[in-house]
Amino acid sequence: MKKQVYSFGNGTADGDGKMKEVLGGKGAGLAEMCRANLPVPPGFTISTEVCNIYFQNNNQVPNEIDAQMLEALRMLEQRMGQKLGDTGNPLLVSVRSGAKFSMPGMMDTILNLGLNDQTVLAVEKKSGNPRFAYDCYRRFIQMFGNVVLDIEKHDFDQIFEGRKKKVGAKFDTDLTADDLKAVIADYKKLVQKKTGKPFPQEAMHQLTMARDAVFRSWNNARAIHYRRMNGIPDDLGTAVNVQAMVFGNLGETSATGVGFTRNPSTGEKVFYGEFLINAQGEDVVAGIRTPQPIAALESVMPEVYNQLREITTNLEKHYRDVQDFEFTIQEGKLYMLQTRNGKRTGPAAVRIAVDMVEEGLISKSEAVLRVDPQQLDQLLHPVLDPASKKALQLIAKGLPASPGAAVGTIVFTADHAVEASKKAPVILVRAETVPDDIHGMEVAKGILTSRGGMTSHAAVVARGMGTPCVAGAGAIEVNEHKKEMTVAVNGRKLVLKEGDWLSLDGSTGEVFEGRANTIEADPSSGILATFMGWADEFRGKFGVRANADIPRDAKVARRFGAEGIGLCRTEHMFFAEDRIPHMQAMILARDEKTRRKALAKLLPMQRKDFAGLFQAMAGYPVVIRTLDPPLHEFLPKREQLMVDIAKLPGADLKTKKEMVSRYERFGATVATLKKVLPELLARVEELHEFNPMLGHRGCRLGITYPEITEMQARAIFEAAVQVARKGVKVIPEVMIPLIGGVRELENQKKIVVQVAEEVLGKAGMNGMKYMVGTMIEIPRAALTADEVAREAEFFSFGTNDLTQTTMGLSRDDYTKFQMDYENAKIFQNDPFAVLDQDGVGKLVGMAVKLGRGARPELEVGICGEHGGEPNSVQFCYRVGMNYVSCSPYRVPIARLAAAQAAISGDKSEAMRTA
Amino acid sequence: MKKQVYSFGNGTADGDGKMKEVLGGKGAGLAEMCRANLPVPPGFTISTEVCNIYFQNNNQVPNEIDAQMLEALRMLEQRMGQKLGDTGNPLLVSVRSGAKFSMPGMMDTILNLGLNDQTVLAVEKKSGNPRFAYDCYRRFIQMFGNVVLDIEKHDFDQIFEGRKKKVGAKFDTDLTADDLKAVIADYKKLVQKKTGKPFPQEAMHQLTMARDAVFRSWNNARAIHYRRMNGIPDDLGTAVNVQAMVFGNLGETSATGVGFTRNPSTGEKVFYGEFLINAQGEDVVAGIRTPQPIAALESVMPEVYNQLREITTNLEKHYRDVQDFEFTIQEGKLYMLQTRNGKRTGPAAVRIAVDMVEEGLISKSEAVLRVDPQQLDQLLHPVLDPASKKALQLIAKGLPASPGAAVGTIVFTADHAVEASKKAPVILVRAETVPDDIHGMEVAKGILTSRGGMTSHAAVVARGMGTPCVAGAGAIEVNEHKKEMTVAVNGRKLVLKEGDWLSLDGSTGEVFEGRANTIEADPSSGILATFMGWADEFRGKFGVRANADIPRDAKVARRFGAEGIGLCRTEHMFFAEDRIPHMQAMILARDEKTRRKALAKLLPMQRKDFAGLFQAMAGYPVVIRTLDPPLHEFLPKREQLMVDIAKLPGADLKTKKEMVSRYERFGATVATLKKVLPELLARVEELHEFNPMLGHRGCRLGITYPEITEMQARAIFEAAVQVARKGVKVIPEVMIPLIGGVRELENQKKIVVQVAEEVLGKAGMNGMKYMVGTMIEIPRAALTADEVAREAEFFSFGTNDLTQTTMGLSRDDYTKFQMDYENAKIFQNDPFAVLDQDGVGKLVGMAVKLGRGARPELEVGICGEHGGEPNSVQFCYRVGMNYVSCSPYRVPIARLAAAQAAISGDKSEAMRTA
Repeated sequence: MKKQVYSFGNGTADGDGKMKEVLGGKGAGLAEMCRANLPVPPGFTISTEVCNIYFQNNNQVPNEIDAQMLEALRMLEQRMGQKLGDTGNPLLVSVRSGAKFSMPGMMDTILNLGLNDQTVLAVEKKSGNPRFAYDCYRRFIQMFGNVVLDIEKHDFDQIFEGRKKKVGAKFDTDLTADDLKAVIADYKKLVQKKTGKPFPQEAMHQLTMARDAVFRSWNNARAIHYRRMNGIPDDLGTAVNVQAMVFGNLGETSATGVGFTRNPSTGEKVFYGEFLINAQGEDVVAGIRTPQPIAALESVMPEVYNQLREITTNLEKHYRDVQDFEFTIQEGKLYMLQTRNGKRTGPAAVRIAVDMVEEGLISKSEAVLRVDPQQLDQLLHPVLDPASKKALQLIAKGLPASPGAAVGTIVFTADHAVEASKKAPVILVRAETVPDDIHGMEVAKGILTSRGGMTSHAAVVARGMGTPCVAGAGAIEVNEHKKEMTVAVNGRKLVLKEGDWLSLDGSTGEVFEGRANTIEADPSSGILATFMGWADEFRGKFGVRANADIPRDAKVARRFGAEGIGLCRTEHMFFAEDRIPHMQAMILARDEKTRRKALAKLLPMQRKDFAGLFQAMAGYPVVIRTLDPPLHEFLPKREQLMVDIAKLPGADLKTKKEMVSRYERFGATVATLKKVLPELLARVEELHEFNPMLGHRGCRLGITYPEITEMQARAIFEAAVQVARKGVKVIPEVMIPLIGGVRELENQKKIVVQVAEEVLGKAGMNGMKYMVGTMIEIPRAALTADEVAREAEFFSFGTNDLTQTTMGLSRDDYTKFQMDYENAKIFQNDPFAVLDQDGVGKLVGMAVKLGRGARPELEVGICGEHGGEPNSVQFCYRVGMNYVSCSPYRVPIARLAAAQAAISGDKSEAMRTA
Repeated sequence: MKKQVYSFGNGTADGDGKMKEVLGGKGAGLAEMCRANLPVPPGFTISTEVCNIYFQNNNQVPNEIDAQMLEALRMLEQRMGQKLGDTGNPLLVSVRSGAKFSMPGMMDTILNLGLNDQTVLAVEKKSGNPRFAYDCYRRFIQMFGNVVLDIEKHDFDQIFEGRKKKVGAKFDTDLTADDLKAVIADYKKLVQKKTGKPFPQEAMHQLTMARDAVFRSWNNARAIHYRRMNGIPDDLGTAVNVQAMVFGNLGETSATGVGFTRNPSTGEKVFYGEFLINAQGEDVVAGIRTPQPIAALESVMPEVYNQLREITTNLEKHYRDVQDFEFTIQEGKLYMLQTRNGKRTGPAAVRIAVDMVEEGLISKSEAVLRVDPQQLDQLLHPVLDPASKKALQLIAKGLPASPGAAVGTIVFTADHAVEASKKAPVILVRAETVPDDIHGMEVAKGILTSRGGMTSHAAVVARGMGTPCVAGAGAIEVNEHKKEMTVAVNGRKLVLKEGDWLSLDGSTGEVFEGRANTIEADPSSGILATFMGWADEFRGKFGVRANADIPRDAKVARRFGAEGIGLCRTEHMFFAEDRIPHMQAMILARDEKTRRKALAKLLPMQRKDFAGLFQAMAGYPVVIRTLDPPLHEFLPKREQLMVDIAKLPGADLKTKKEMVSRYERFGATVATLKKVLPELLARVEELHEFNPMLGHRGCRLGITYPEITEMQARAIFEAAVQVARKGVKVIPEVMIPLIGGVRELENQKKIVVQVAEEVLGKAGMNGMKYMVGTMIEIPRAALTADEVAREAEFFSFGTNDLTQTTMGLSRDDYTKFQMDYENAKIFQNDPFAVLDQDGVGKLVGMAVKLGRGARPELEVGICGEHGGEPNSVQFCYRVGMNYVSCSPYRVPIARLAAAQAAISGDKSEAMRTA
């Protein structure tokens, strides 16, 4: 029979601190503390595996494990010299959950188990403190009733508060023993009423019931939710810790408290925590009485205080990390109830890691591993002042689509955003954004949408620009025409108009009415700089670049440590006010000559953009992708046109003028609407696609219209020459999107090389090093990567589209059934946030191998959104990529993730040759 | 120096009949005939490789090859006792192209080369026939001028016809030698005028110019087009055959002709062909004089006729195939100029193959290999009577989307099709069809669309139903509202109205105005049955199933030899008139209970459908796919709703009534339109998708609405029980579509198995064998096929969608740039017609291997459109699938393709275990 129950106590333990898998975090900590001879109440831990067995076995623990538990209980009784349920000297125990990963407050705890109408008398007698005895009993009934018997906490509170009111008690402690007896009587009645049975008096029965309830709590709604949020697998299970009770509520020399060895918010090296005199565990966190700061313990019980400091300091040294501990003082004697590595904020994580290196406690590599890359985000964006958040009305919650705080006045259209932003900061509020909104998004301090997910247009673009964004706040209704948004807040309908102030927290998804204060982030902070320096040492040659389309973003990227641009989306430049008319003229052109004329107007503009990027990235490579989106994205929406045409016959002048404002650019006047609209619709219909994602875009445009590729290549190389002439080192990498095989690349590369040779030749700069490569974003390109690499000098995995095609999943439409897929446990993570390593990743790995097989010096990177997600970055490192590219604000996160991958040493070194 | 020029003549040859690769078909045939000591004018062949060298070498033949040619020319001169350009006894030669694959009429030929102002005198003198000499010379100038010097044929014709008119000649032969001299003088003036140079007189120069022109003709537009149509690679090149001239125009004992050893249209074993007395080669095909049937030769020149019969009969025996030959009789002496395997129609191919086996000429396996599976199509559909085609006006040409002839009266809507078809056969004419049109498509004799490609909805559904279809006839404008179609024919605008007669040829894409006669096909023809029987012997265990949704199609499929149903698309059943209201109610339901109520109404209908299929496929497996298309396909179109809502405020009663007719089903009346339409639009908007192909469909629906899968499973197994009770063997295979990995399958399989066990258990039929499997149509499913096979009992590759996702290519949108891709030579074939073996095929092969690795008995098939395309069928055989499934009318084609694959023996036997 496999060992499933582990005893601990009296300076020894069956398990130890490394056995988190089996004992859970709490159980392992208790075992380790016992072995270190710290004052820990004895007990035993039922392993996490039993939790799974319990569920598989029809919610029952098999007899042989019951037997092991009984044996451990006997040992505990021996150690305590007490017996569970004994009416003379009864053993009381706590029953607590404890999974491998800490899930604070997510699962259940029962204290004082073993009390019943008989044993309470023994406790009363033994303690000489009737109030204590009955307080313990009523707490036990309350917790047991709630956790095991599923009775609402509220029902117990009502009885308890009713009693306090009746006797005029202010604090819980004002209730006398008799009051508590009355409460207990009422509690028992409540239990009888709700469960149809009396409160269980048999102590052993109490114990098995409590144990099973803890197991069940593993699958309560909030635990499941927590695991999903934190990526904790569902099949780990929780352990159950049964431990002899010690009492912090035995009078003024008793207390209970929690603490950290360092400040978990700031990382400052100060002893941190709080305690309550004459209280039991849950009182500290329940907020009924205000606990005292832990420093106060020094004056109240100096000896205990010093012992606690010594123990926790040693624990920190032993575990080599900040400790989060719980203790109880029973009549002047200190007991340690738990210790574990403390959770901390991003800033604290960085500070603690750096301090500990300086204290000689951990190595630099350990320090680098100690900070969750995702946490760095908190250090890189301004945040809303917590005081402001409390003062303002929270009106909605959406998805935390792009982190940081934003405060501004509401605008409902991109055009108006541009205007209004000249006077005040603006928040762009849209049902959803479209590429046409780009100029408004650029000037907005924050973006709020009522529709769309974490990878909606608004979210992706906002993250790229580092603009805070709350997406998919479904409770808000946006009415662009009325220029107002409505939302129900506590039952009342709140209407906000253009110009009203709004505050967004893009890190939490919260939306506040009114004007909050913000606290600026300090990305060049001394400690952060030190920390990132260490990370970069370990990261070595593995590069981190940024996705940036305009010089402003490129500059931010450099400041955040980007070593080049991994993706410049040239089309973003075409949506600008001064360019879109030429772009549209190009699209509406019926022949190559007219098209070339329009392109000629775009050429100097693109050249200027590229020159700015080359300048900002002096000495670093700049990957420029040729035109990618389908052309209809640049034209008016088909439905709008159809509706306008339908409305036209009966339209009044005002409506017509409104239409003209939409189609002015296409030669519409009130008189010509009737002619222009159907013509325009005809072209839009021609370009209309059923599945634009799989349509006429990417290199397919360049193959149909080689003159577009030609113009873009010309703009790139003329800009390169221009900047190089100033003595700046320029490294252009031209990237062809959406190829399905080598032939498309061949076709487009030929055009690019021809233009490059011509432009560089004319400038006498034939020596300038440049590359032509391709996105790998279609499965076929990955499957035939060996052939593709014959032509491609670099690969850049476009994992956004590669995920869409490999999974057959449109990221725009996926949100409709995302919840169903999560509930059915089909996806572990959102595949657009975290790279699907089993499927998409398999294809990526295959392509890297095939590509390098054909061209060993092939440069390989990633430019999808995953390039800034730590797990995905580590995957990219492992498969042997040369770099990742992500939005500028995520560059430090990627740098850290890469460093951690390097330290873990889990890479296919053989594959990384360039 | 590699041998590039091959001599032949006088009973010997450097090459032989197997060297088609090097000598081209014609050159190899000439060499082989020489070796067989047949009367062949001597000559030499310049190899196909020289053609490629010519293009790579800046359109020049390298000197060393020129030297080889000169040597061969010397040998030829020796053999003939003549010399090129000699003014005493000049050698005249023909210069002809000849590629590996015959490309009749696609490339160029020059006769009588070597003639000039001097040598013509020698020919005149030697032949004693001035008319002959000058006729040869004028023909030479004409051909050389056209082929080598790029002068329009028309310009020569004008001179020639002018002369005929001037002298009152009816036939070419009426012109005298003096007339011809005058023609030659005018020809030479024309050459001087057009090229700025005199007609080249130097014979050697003529030869190299002609040779180079033949090389160049490899890349003329019609040759490129022909290669593309016939899948011939561009890099094969053409050989050049230089051969001593023999003359069929030396008077009444001379002649020239072409023939076949059997009738190439019907396959009948009769000597077949035609000839002209006193004529040169091109006269036979030019149609100026009407040739005589070859039988007439027997009476004119009986000896020559017998010699020709003997020679060609021997040639047929030698090559063991029908021969297509050319001959010339010069003053009573027979010369063979060419022999090659003859092209033939589908019916002829089958008949010849079967006859030759019966004659003991070839084996059964050779017979099976002799028929191009694609050609069988001609035997399986009715065809338009060729006489009718000539008599009627061709008004447009579209894509040959579904073969066969259709004649009927025009209807423009599906509803009207149903009505009108009760009175007369109808042709459904639509801009494009949608699933909603299915009832109209079912009753139509033929379908014509102005938009969409070979895999558009119309095309796919039509092929599935075996209904002739011409798709994407872009010249036609369809106006559903006006109930008319317009098309420009020879400059005039033709308007056809509802009820007008139309004839379609779905095999050619031709559309005729009026009512053509049709000739019925005879699928159970004795010869065809014999032939298919042989094919099936070789095919062995490799199965051919059909895609069929309704019992009628299933019956056709059985008649065509299908061994089961490989795909039943259950959704097609929901579009029927009596079902769609329940389907729509189901979609509009806001909660599970309402949804279940609507589903309950669909259950008996589906059960009946399935029972019909099981009955029709007694003893064979029936693969039924659960619901696949996105739900919005069942609702009104979003744009239509938006337009109707926009129109509503100013609409008159008539318009409103029209709207009501569209939305009656959703409770719309004239009074409620204002309320119903926006509500309906709201739900349609909810379901609207940006990329429906990658959206909420397939198993994703079943995961969101498990009750749909449950209802379908219930219908399947209740039907199975019903039919099995009648003593019919039922083999249901339930197929889950669009999975991306094993978890989706797991989820849906659980539902299916639960229902199956319940239904079968209740019926006491637990022993019924059934399977649950999955489509593999998403790359991720293929990549993780080992995991998927843990749950899947069978795989069926949905290569339509797998091609779309693997190539990132929407088949609905691809037609927009298909032409650009073909011109840029990016695709060899339309990947939706012929499986892309390098990309998609790689994934398929990988998935088969992974799947069988995890579950050796895994049943693997294909149900995409490719399942009926011969190359793809052979691929499926090679990768070790168990069967292919295709539309009923393609079943014989697939059977033959599979048999050919089996004979070629090119299969991975190791992989086929089940």
